[in-house]
Amino acid sequence: MTLPTVTRAAVLHGPEDLRIEEMPLRPPGPGDVLVEVDAVGVCGSDMHYFAHGRNGANQLRRPTVLGHEASGTVVAAGPEARLEPGTRVAIEPAVGCGACATCRSGRYNLCPVGTCFGSPPTHGVLATHVVAPARAVHPLPDTIPLELGALIEPLAVAVWAVQRAEIAVGHRVLVTGAGPIGLLVAQVARAAGAAEVIVTDVNDARLAQARKLGATQAVNTAAQDLELADVDRLVECSAHPAALWQGIRTLKPAARATVVGQAAPAVDGLPLAHLQRWEIDLVTAFRYAHAFPTALSLAADGRVDLAPLLTGRFPLARAADALRAPVQDPTHLKVVVRPDGTSV
Amino acid sequence: MTLPTVTRAAVLHGPEDLRIEEMPLRPPGPGDVLVEVDAVGVCGSDMHYFAHGRNGANQLRRPTVLGHEASGTVVAAGPEARLEPGTRVAIEPAVGCGACATCRSGRYNLCPVGTCFGSPPTHGVLATHVVAPARAVHPLPDTIPLELGALIEPLAVAVWAVQRAEIAVGHRVLVTGAGPIGLLVAQVARAAGAAEVIVTDVNDARLAQARKLGATQAVNTAAQDLELADVDRLVECSAHPAALWQGIRTLKPAARATVVGQAAPAVDGLPLAHLQRWEIDLVTAFRYAHAFPTALSLAADGRVDLAPLLTGRFPLARAADALRAPVQDPTHLKVVVRPDGTSV
Amino acid sequence: MTLPTVTRAAVLHGPEDLRIEEMPLRPPGPGDVLVEVDAVGVCGSDMHYFAHGRNGANQLRRPTVLGHEASGTVVAAGPEARLEPGTRVAIEPAVGCGACATCRSGRYNLCPVGTCFGSPPTHGVLATHVVAPARAVHPLPDTIPLELGALIEPLAVAVWAVQRAEIAVGHRVLVTGAGPIGLLVAQVARAAGAAEVIVTDVNDARLAQARKLGATQAVNTAAQDLELADVDRLVECSAHPAALWQGIRTLKPAARATVVGQAAPAVDGLPLAHLQRWEIDLVTAFRYAHAFPTALSLAADGRVDLAPLLTGRFPLARAADALRAPVQDPTHLKVVVRPDGTSV
Amino acid sequence: MTLPTVTRAAVLHGPEDLRIEEMPLRPPGPGDVLVEVDAVGVCGSDMHYFAHGRNGANQLRRPTVLGHEASGTVVAAGPEARLEPGTRVAIEPAVGCGACATCRSGRYNLCPVGTCFGSPPTHGVLATHVVAPARAVHPLPDTIPLELGALIEPLAVAVWAVQRAEIAVGHRVLVTGAGPIGLLVAQVARAAGAAEVIVTDVNDARLAQARKLGATQAVNTAAQDLELADVDRLVECSAHPAALWQGIRTLKPAARATVVGQAAPAVDGLPLAHLQRWEIDLVTAFRYAHAFPTALSLAADGRVDLAPLLTGRFPLARAADALRAPVQDPTHLKVVVRPDGTSV
Repeated sequence: MTLPTVTRAAVLHGPEDLRIEEMPLRPPGPGDVLVEVDAVGVCGSDMHYFAHGRNGANQLRRPTVLGHEASGTVVAAGPEARLEPGTRVAIEPAVGCGACATCRSGRYNLCPVGTCFGSPPTHGVLATHVVAPARAVHPLPDTIPLELGALIEPLAVAVWAVQRAEIAVGHRVLVTGAGPIGLLVAQVARAAGAAEVIVTDVNDARLAQARKLGATQAVNTAAQDLELADVDRLVECSAHPAALWQGIRTLKPAARATVVGQAAPAVDGLPLAHLQRWEIDLVTAFRYAHAFPTALSLAADGRVDLAPLLTGRFPLARAADALRAPVQDPTHLKVVVRPDGTSV
Repeated sequence: MTLPTVTRAAVLHGPEDLRIEEMPLRPPGPGDVLVEVDAVGVCGSDMHYFAHGRNGANQLRRPTVLGHEASGTVVAAGPEARLEPGTRVAIEPAVGCGACATCRSGRYNLCPVGTCFGSPPTHGVLATHVVAPARAVHPLPDTIPLELGALIEPLAVAVWAVQRAEIAVGHRVLVTGAGPIGLLVAQVARAAGAAEVIVTDVNDARLAQARKLGATQAVNTAAQDLELADVDRLVECSAHPAALWQGIRTLKPAARATVVGQAAPAVDGLPLAHLQRWEIDLVTAFRYAHAFPTALSLAADGRVDLAPLLTGRFPLARAADALRAPVQDPTHLKVVVRPDGTSV
Repeated sequence: MTLPTVTRAAVLHGPEDLRIEEMPLRPPGPGDVLVEVDAVGVCGSDMHYFAHGRNGANQLRRPTVLGHEASGTVVAAGPEARLEPGTRVAIEPAVGCGACATCRSGRYNLCPVGTCFGSPPTHGVLATHVVAPARAVHPLPDTIPLELGALIEPLAVAVWAVQRAEIAVGHRVLVTGAGPIGLLVAQVARAAGAAEVIVTDVNDARLAQARKLGATQAVNTAAQDLELADVDRLVECSAHPAALWQGIRTLKPAARATVVGQAAPAVDGLPLAHLQRWEIDLVTAFRYAHAFPTALSLAADGRVDLAPLLTGRFPLARAADALRAPVQDPTHLKVVVRPDGTSV
Repeated sequence: MTLPTVTRAAVLHGPEDLRIEEMPLRPPGPGDVLVEVDAVGVCGSDMHYFAHGRNGANQLRRPTVLGHEASGTVVAAGPEARLEPGTRVAIEPAVGCGACATCRSGRYNLCPVGTCFGSPPTHGVLATHVVAPARAVHPLPDTIPLELGALIEPLAVAVWAVQRAEIAVGHRVLVTGAGPIGLLVAQVARAAGAAEVIVTDVNDARLAQARKLGATQAVNTAAQDLELADVDRLVECSAHPAALWQGIRTLKPAARATVVGQAAPAVDGLPLAHLQRWEIDLVTAFRYAHAFPTALSLAADGRVDLAPLLTGRFPLARAADALRAPVQDPTHLKVVVRPDGTSV
């Protein structure tokens, strides 16, 4: 079999300048696999790069393939990769260098030198084919459709968030923000035994979805006050400081607030005296470590329902439309791009 | 309203010598409630006291009312008790002295001076009426039938076991023993996010029940070898050391084994070198601390199904038969005695 | 023996209005002790009340005896108090209600209904005599001079801070602020096995004291940049947000910042993106729980040296001067008032 | 410079059959260093292999170089190793495969596929020269004499034991066994803030050494009963089950027993009912993970004193005598072999 040596990819050249181009594909090394990409989810960070040429502190400096949420099928595997061609997989985009003290301590998501697919200048997975290290590639259980494999990455974000939040059986959990991450966090929190999961947002359609997916309560904070107390865990998924500060006020003594939504560099109004009086811990979640296996098991047996989150599909040629869709239509939850691997 | 001043109770005078007698009922103090008992579960420890006049190191030394798993209805409450007459409740039988260092640290189940209903010489709840401190009395949610309130206590055992076991989302959990506690632990483990719950026993009927209640696998270890590996958590509920040693062999590195089944004073064959080579922790669970609210929430919304565990009902007059039933018929899971409060 | 029925106390009537007055002394209940006060430390919160009639959110609304850091000698004890007259003691000013869920979980410092000596409207210990519950009274080991017993309370603050900070053997620890709490935290951190303890302040005399007391490095951040990295734990004791934000920048991935210094209600400039990128936890310490025994053991065998922190002594009649001293002379560390118990 | 291509090593061919032989030395790879060995400590496991041709479950099957506690000087380093020739180092003998789930989770000491210097069939460090991966080689601070660098490995065992034991400031700690590991654990426990460290043994000389090294109490359990209670942490270093069972009886509720001494495959007499009644956790320590840096810092600034533990020195030619010495003279603590690197 002849392996493809080029990939057709969505390359960002600058704000709003996304081009579908052929790129050389490096041959897989002994520990690598070559994956034909099936679906790539669009994430808020992709949308930031596309709209502004930057995301947080990271600036686009050279043309870069976007995308870090991918499923696909193994086409070829190096001799040390132990994965059969034909295996359906989800790709974990950031697995750390494996050698630094942070990686060796188990927190590879915080590796100071590792790269992440689709974080410029590292090319991403919004392409027909991609080469990845075998340890970044997770076989999909039979019960997960290949297309939904692209949602395993955001589900891993939610799994890690719930772990960082230390959600346990019996907890009352508040999830602020009913976007894709919030809806996944709500489901994982419920799967982790939360007795109550209250979801807040300002969009009624998203709140209706939250109710369908297991939230015990869903509150439109634009329409009504959040009357809530004795909350054990807050998981902030809206990226709005106001939601964080409001959520903190609902927590009980010795509770824990976990920020998952992308944080701003400097945020005003931290209620530090309140945190101190009640010894409420403020922690954060960044990507995930060791979370893909759990994400796969939750999706495989239906404890987490991914299908309702997938609200739009675009071919690779229309990747730019995919990157604009969630902004143009806020009822969108997760949009995927589906490269047609045979087209290269 | 005139409060009852006597209770009709099942008093153990010696092995196999259980007598239904009237006992004086102390008037409730300012922080107490008087409860009319609806149902009292029979536990292995009750059966030990009844059969042998002792349980573990504790010897019956004077006639004692048995029973520690009770539901009932508040008849009267002291001025500091803040519970309305008519409130349906489950009773927590051991709440600690509240003043010692162990209680103050939060582990009141380990209080060295506290008493427990039905642990001789402290009288139990197998009676028409009982007086209890308000902090030991937990209102039942509307969705829990009063009779099933007697199963909240064993459910609290299971909740605490799962907490001590540190079961988390994605875990592969082995539960050895499919008696009432094992079946409840299996359900709570699943509610806590376990990806797999494997239950073992030597009784096929109990294993069938385990499957119905959510075990992903149920294995009769009398009939087949337990072929299992990479288990994250073992919860031993059979009280058989062989099950514990066998279960430990299935654990992955850095895993945790939790003993819930009543332990013998000296057990031979501890695989200490194996525990050490893989740094497997061996921990135990004794009663529960702060677990009733979680137990109530799990039963209230159906994440734990109590009804299938209740396999027999006896009037107070036949309490001795209730105490013999699970031994005579091993398909029994939980048997309750139902005192008729109006009979005093 | 006739027990005193009045105490001579420093009563705050309003900003800068402190009066030495006789107050009635309630007779000790069965679980109480009556203590003749030897020394009372002046804390920042006392100084706030004295200067402004308020501290944080708490406003002086009626004349209140100040003070919460006291040592003394037991004069009389109720029958349940199990303390001999003549016992030298340190007083723990806030021990919680003992009955709420927070107290029962072990975190009595966060009790929502408990009181604290010297937090208006609860009278404090700046008096010749005080009645306290026995569980709030800790016998002093022989090696601790009675006067220094007044410093056990701030040492307990430091012990709890180090526990909340999760400082362990081998850690590199940054302590911002070399006031009494910072100097105690530095010592306790070292006693807890910190390999390095770096202390920052803007006062050279305090930094010199830090070096004498075991800091491996002391940096005047007004004079030089803090060039530091890979810090495991930050303990913020200066109450200046700038120190907190600066300290956070020195932390390694997955590190922990603990705020001990009194926090403002709303603080600007939280570096949330930085906290998130490195999953740095931001936690706080409020008073202490279960920390007095450890504080006593550290002071008893000299692992913590209290004497150098005591820089001023005032008689009760000059309590107002004591409350002004640390502001007027920043080289003061801890000032005590020494009521003469025989004077009532 | 020409690198040595052979090493002169102590090769075990069978029980009591140790031969000094030349062995080929593999050239260092890009990530390796070549170390000239200065000193190699003799450990109980070495003595077992020498005496019986086996240690625990591991059988000598082919001639193997013994030894896993080494210090030395870097002679050459591969281009990726980032270590200068001339660097004085301690060698960490088992660093895991780095790729399995256990290694990636941070517990590389439990790696199921990794090797350890001197665990047959992997050759050890009892040789003039050895090649090791750079991540296994830790530079010695200037204050640690090269010879004592051989004791960093057992100190790392003690550091990890104290971490696994969760020893914290204020704890009362019982260390059973005053051999090299017990004496190091006692010192590290003290450095970790233990308020009391009680050491037991049956040898008065070792107990005297324990007292000199900071034990607050040292008890000869052959001569007197161990009257002790309310112990927070037990660290078992004697490898005698009786010491473990006896030590467990001294623990307070919710305490923790940690087994460090080499454990037997099956141990009788586990007091499981006692462990359960008081929820005492039984855990173990196997080698160490991430402990060398902390060990180095403790030895560098004198918080742990290594010199008194080194009681014997032997040249390579007398390695067999070194392996017999501690058995023949129980006052020996740690014996080292000092290969003369210039002799190859």
